[in-house]
Amino acid sequence: MSRFAKTPQPPYYAVIFTTVKSENQTGYAEMNARMFELAQQQKGYLGIESARGEIGLSVTYWETLEDIADWRNHAEHKLAQAAGYATWYQAVATRICRVERDNFYEK
Amino acid sequence: MSRFAKTPQPPYYAVIFTTVKSENQTGYAEMNARMFELAQQQKGYLGIESARGEIGLSVTYWETLEDIADWRNHAEHKLAQAAGYATWYQAVATRICRVERDNFYEK
Repeated sequence: MSRFAKTPQPPYYAVIFTTVKSENQTGYAEMNARMFELAQQQKGYLGIESARGEIGLSVTYWETLEDIADWRNHAEHKLAQAAGYATWYQAVATRICRVERDNFYEK
Repeated sequence: MSRFAKTPQPPYYAVIFTTVKSENQTGYAEMNARMFELAQQQKGYLGIESARGEIGLSVTYWETLEDIADWRNHAEHKLAQAAGYATWYQAVATRICRVERDNFYEK
C-alpha cells in the first residue's frame, strides 16, 4: 500500500492537478523534485499520488482547506507556479475537493 | 482543453481511483475500453482524466453522489469490478470527493 497516500479517516481534502505539458521542459524535473520535497514539509500535508500519460495527473491530500491555501501561497511554490504557467505547462486544471468517503483494497 | 474533463461550475463530484496492477493483465484492455464506453452513457457522467505510471490514476467526474452510487451498482460494472479485484489489480484506493472549487488555465 506504500504507493498510495496514507490518508486518515475522511473528511480530508484533495487537490487534483491535471496538466498538459509544453514542449519546453528545461528545468522542470528539478523544480518538480524540489516542490515534492517542500510540499512534504508543509502543515497538513498527507501525501501524493501521481502518474503521467498524455496528461499528467497529480493528487495531493491535505488535512484542511487552509493548509491548501497556505501551500498555494508559499513563496517558493508561487515562483514555481509562475514558471509552470510561463514555460512548462500548455494547460492546467486545478480542482479542490473534500474527500467524503474512501475505500482501500490490497491483495 | 479537450484532454480535460468538461466539468460545470462546482459543486460536482469526483471519484479518484488509484491502482497498482497485478502481473496478469489478460483481458484488462478490453474491459477498460468497455467500461470507458459504458460510463459515458450513465446519468450524471461528466468526464474522465487518467494517466498511468508506477500507479494508475483515473478521476471520473459526476453530477451527484447518487450518480456515483448508481454507476458503482451497475450490473456490468460490478462484474468488471469483481474481475479487477480478482485478477488485474494488486491494490486499489477509491476516494469519493465533492469538488468545491476549480480553476482552468490554457495558453
